[in-house]
Amino acid sequence: MPIITLTTDFGWDSGYVAQLKGVILSALPNVQLVDVAHALPPQSIRHAEVMLREVAFGFPLGATHVVVVDPGVGTGRRGIAVQARGHTFVGPDNGVLGFAVMQPGASTVHLDRPAYWREPVSATFHGRDVFAPIAAELAGGIGFTDVGSVITDARPSTLPAWTRVGENVRGQTLVADRFGNLLTNVPASAIDQRGAWSVQVGDVRLAGKSTYADAPVGQALALVGSDGYLEIAVNQGAAIDRFGIDVTVVAQARRAV
Amino acid sequence: MPIITLTTDFGWDSGYVAQLKGVILSALPNVQLVDVAHALPPQSIRHAEVMLREVAFGFPLGATHVVVVDPGVGTGRRGIAVQARGHTFVGPDNGVLGFAVMQPGASTVHLDRPAYWREPVSATFHGRDVFAPIAAELAGGIGFTDVGSVITDARPSTLPAWTRVGENVRGQTLVADRFGNLLTNVPASAIDQRGAWSVQVGDVRLAGKSTYADAPVGQALALVGSDGYLEIAVNQGAAIDRFGIDVTVVAQARRAV
Amino acid sequence: MPIITLTTDFGWDSGYVAQLKGVILSALPNVQLVDVAHALPPQSIRHAEVMLREVAFGFPLGATHVVVVDPGVGTGRRGIAVQARGHTFVGPDNGVLGFAVMQPGASTVHLDRPAYWREPVSATFHGRDVFAPIAAELAGGIGFTDVGSVITDARPSTLPAWTRVGENVRGQTLVADRFGNLLTNVPASAIDQRGAWSVQVGDVRLAGKSTYADAPVGQALALVGSDGYLEIAVNQGAAIDRFGIDVTVVAQARRAV
Repeated sequence: MPIITLTTDFGWDSGYVAQLKGVILSALPNVQLVDVAHALPPQSIRHAEVMLREVAFGFPLGATHVVVVDPGVGTGRRGIAVQARGHTFVGPDNGVLGFAVMQPGASTVHLDRPAYWREPVSATFHGRDVFAPIAAELAGGIGFTDVGSVITDARPSTLPAWTRVGENVRGQTLVADRFGNLLTNVPASAIDQRGAWSVQVGDVRLAGKSTYADAPVGQALALVGSDGYLEIAVNQGAAIDRFGIDVTVVAQARRAV
Repeated sequence: MPIITLTTDFGWDSGYVAQLKGVILSALPNVQLVDVAHALPPQSIRHAEVMLREVAFGFPLGATHVVVVDPGVGTGRRGIAVQARGHTFVGPDNGVLGFAVMQPGASTVHLDRPAYWREPVSATFHGRDVFAPIAAELAGGIGFTDVGSVITDARPSTLPAWTRVGENVRGQTLVADRFGNLLTNVPASAIDQRGAWSVQVGDVRLAGKSTYADAPVGQALALVGSDGYLEIAVNQGAAIDRFGIDVTVVAQARRAV
Repeated sequence: MPIITLTTDFGWDSGYVAQLKGVILSALPNVQLVDVAHALPPQSIRHAEVMLREVAFGFPLGATHVVVVDPGVGTGRRGIAVQARGHTFVGPDNGVLGFAVMQPGASTVHLDRPAYWREPVSATFHGRDVFAPIAAELAGGIGFTDVGSVITDARPSTLPAWTRVGENVRGQTLVADRFGNLLTNVPASAIDQRGAWSVQVGDVRLAGKSTYADAPVGQALALVGSDGYLEIAVNQGAAIDRFGIDVTVVAQARRAV
């Protein structure tokens, strides 16, 4: 069965998620529909992008990922589909698919072929009327370039980049998870974790640890998160309550070998 | 695979939804189980009905829809199944299925055949003990009138009706979605959207637009929602915060052609 | 299709649930994935255990249940799999699987065979790296004792036990559901429900009823919940607001026959 994953900010108290599912199942009855997340902060492009970054490529090759966080629906913003590393992505061209667009070898099409859309297309719900039917077509085997024209100017990632400053790597927190852990944009591979490493978070210095419980209860720590990026946490507490959502992190850079 | 959709007010922090799934999968292992919404406001019959109205007929013909918003469970209220427009609905006779009951050609049975229920039937969870097993039977192909006796007095929709007042259409907001948009009971087909149309919302007059972004950020507007009904919104804001949940809307009626 | 159920405290706003799904689908494409609950109170072992107690054995024989409420991840706590009454459970050895461990005839293995894990194993997400791949292997048919060594000291239930005190049964509330109903540890079979039975809740005496609507609106009552345990509720209200989360309940014991 083809796999279609759904990521939205629609919440679980509306019918919007189910309308995506109805459209997909109507076109492609035998499909493995996967709810990724639907309670993303409303209209947070950044949150959706961070989440897809850590999730998408963990699904089997051939999976199709629909992402609908779409504050600009009904304006001129384009709809796109992206193929990257054997996965297909469908959503608005507003940065939520930026991490896919920027993968080496990725190709992108502008969804400019209304013949594949649900009619009539509402001005406010392209998730149901454009992205869901296109995803069903692509997961069902239609050619990628049948559904749109190739473009090379799709919107890249909206996430801030980390930088090298002298001996240090400088980055920032991006989002918090449900436990209050702060996820950053600094890949673990960029920092020096030998010996007693540490991270400057705002004006506090935190020891680098392996896991939450390596710090005393209630104490803040730095660690490599399960997504491979530097993470700021409090053992059995919420780092977001201590540091806020938007804070600078500085760590010693790994030496080139 | 037959499709069974689940709509409840059980939330995602209890075992109630999963108990429905366990009963259905025990009777019908090859089924496409679809979570529609489980975080509906507790015991809000109106919210469930509005949501089903916009969702149900978007699924393929033959789908079975289980709706469990059931404040009167264990009292005399009946359980029913409804067939309408090629879809089947199962739930309490309290109005949540009113939109299905009122479809032209709909037929309804009172679920009065305990042989098809899960034994023993608890006094507080007919979703698990009556509606889920009946839905599995119906999705599995049993005859509709095998599971209950035909009735003609099932509870109709509990939603208030819109009215024609002189040149105007008068309606009201029904529920808010996660973004704070207010959904109303006024079908777009009833109002005049030619030229510079507008809507009176309480004591404010709002311009009619095509999509959220047609109004300046923070400004309220009226539009035709993706469900085909008049909707009140604030661009990148929450209309519910400005107007409350229960407000009258008045628009110019469409002229008969 | 084999059934794998997922129960976590990850919420619907993160990518953690989807990462479990990606790992499972990569190993076992034809699987019935069932979301049980993901909005459990963070790190509440008790809540997860109560919920699984009422849900797990309602699924068909052969189902595999993954439970990830894991505050001690990355410490010495073991990962385990349990077979009980024809079901398989996978999760941390911290009590969340205690009700399964204590089933008559249950057997448990310590997941000590890294060959079956996802590599590399992160220090903070054994759900993705250990429990999900093991669940896929077990649901796919691998031998139970292939994935770990048999142990007999797995952590039992962390739930407090009810006690017999003279003529009475004494227990306590365990968790609240979304409606504010308080679930207890007192099985209905232990109490005398003949005639006008009642329950002492803290310093209030509540009448025993059959269902919520048997009490006037806003009045507290005791009843047998759909899980077969004594439950404290308020008709169309929230018992948790009246009694708090942690309160003693005393009822007259059933007489031995």
